[in-house]
Amino acid sequence: MASLQSIKANCRKVMCIGRNYADHIKELNSARPKQPFFFLKPPSAILLPGAGPVLRPKGVIMHYEVELALIMGKKVQDLHPDDTKGAMDAIAGYLLAIDMTARNVQDEAKKKGLPWSIAKGFDTFLPISQLIDKSRIADPQNAHLWLSVNGEMKQSDNTELMLFRIPRQLSDISRVMALEEGDIVLTGTPKGVGSVKTGDVMKAGLKVDGKDIEEANIEVP
Amino acid sequence: MASLQSIKANCRKVMCIGRNYADHIKELNSARPKQPFFFLKPPSAILLPGAGPVLRPKGVIMHYEVELALIMGKKVQDLHPDDTKGAMDAIAGYLLAIDMTARNVQDEAKKKGLPWSIAKGFDTFLPISQLIDKSRIADPQNAHLWLSVNGEMKQSDNTELMLFRIPRQLSDISRVMALEEGDIVLTGTPKGVGSVKTGDVMKAGLKVDGKDIEEANIEVP
Ligand SMILES: [Mg+2]
Ligand SMILES: [Mg+2]
Ligand SMILES: [Mg+2]
Repeated sequence: MASLQSIKANCRKVMCIGRNYADHIKELNSARPKQPFFFLKPPSAILLPGAGPVLRPKGVIMHYEVELALIMGKKVQDLHPDDTKGAMDAIAGYLLAIDMTARNVQDEAKKKGLPWSIAKGFDTFLPISQLIDKSRIADPQNAHLWLSVNGEMKQSDNTELMLFRIPRQLSDISRVMALEEGDIVLTGTPKGVGSVKTGDVMKAGLKVDGKDIEEANIEVP
Repeated sequence: MASLQSIKANCRKVMCIGRNYADHIKELNSARPKQPFFFLKPPSAILLPGAGPVLRPKGVIMHYEVELALIMGKKVQDLHPDDTKGAMDAIAGYLLAIDMTARNVQDEAKKKGLPWSIAKGFDTFLPISQLIDKSRIADPQNAHLWLSVNGEMKQSDNTELMLFRIPRQLSDISRVMALEEGDIVLTGTPKGVGSVKTGDVMKAGLKVDGKDIEEANIEVP
């Protein structure tokens, strides 16, 4: 598998699913979607491990959202929603990622019917972990995500709680736009999102079968 | 300057400004923005010249929006809005582009406060022209855009009508996210947008000082 630098360099889009865990929908008072919906983050937002802090733009209320991320290993178009094998074969590996969100900017955009690109797209708004080899996560719908702020656990849930599972996500995206090798897909965040300010330390990680996956560890100062 | 194939291959984001011509805002009954707002299109949407028709997804009302596009020649961060020279120096060249839009999908997204990425991001939703050498457009705020459908002129206006000029656009984007070499910026569409169906022929072009810029010609069957 490629190096992290090349992951960033080769990424041509980051597609993220919104509202994919029921309890997270409740905590934001959002409507439960009848079908998956997606938004783009720009590759320029990727923050590599050790590359410094997330930068909070002035006046921005900045929320964390820990998510399991897929790295695509080949081009996918018009994938059938029941094609679990096709979906799994298209995944080259995994990352843990934090979908940083300018929540007040997003709330304003929602109210006005405006795009989310700014709220989701600031530089440093996508901290990622080291590469996680595909073999390390036997079943991506059975992995435990967690995120803490200053040592206090904020998010801790299993990917089995996703409303729309990974094959359905890849199917829906790929019927709109081709997923290309190197593209990254963020699969949604569980409940517990909240704000961080400059100086807060975020840690995040992933457990499979109760064991920590070391490469997944994120620490953002 | 690079080949068109490499333009597509090297493009890591396409940023588009919304509502940047007053008469276009009126025709869509949109609110006039106090500051520029932007959305991302995925690079996978780029349709190279001669690469076939725009594909209309089932149930989609598909609108054309002709726009002057900038190809970035270097990384730009935190550009000052008055730095006209900095903005112009960062532009490597131009394209003419059609920002195809699934208008009914976008209208639904606006109503529900959802992102625009799907409405703007279908495969083939970004037809572009040949490369236009930077020297061919002495002043990008004085170029005449046009677009016809089946021989009938639909859009025909000068870039001098932009509400937010190019340095302001690049400044606002670059204060949110780094513009990188190869990124493409769409500068907004003038009035006259409308729908096209399968089989309609779109032609578009650019005039500078009353003369056609041949490389800018787009013809989408
Ligand atoms: Mg998210
Ligand atoms: Mg993108
Ligand atoms: Mg447009």
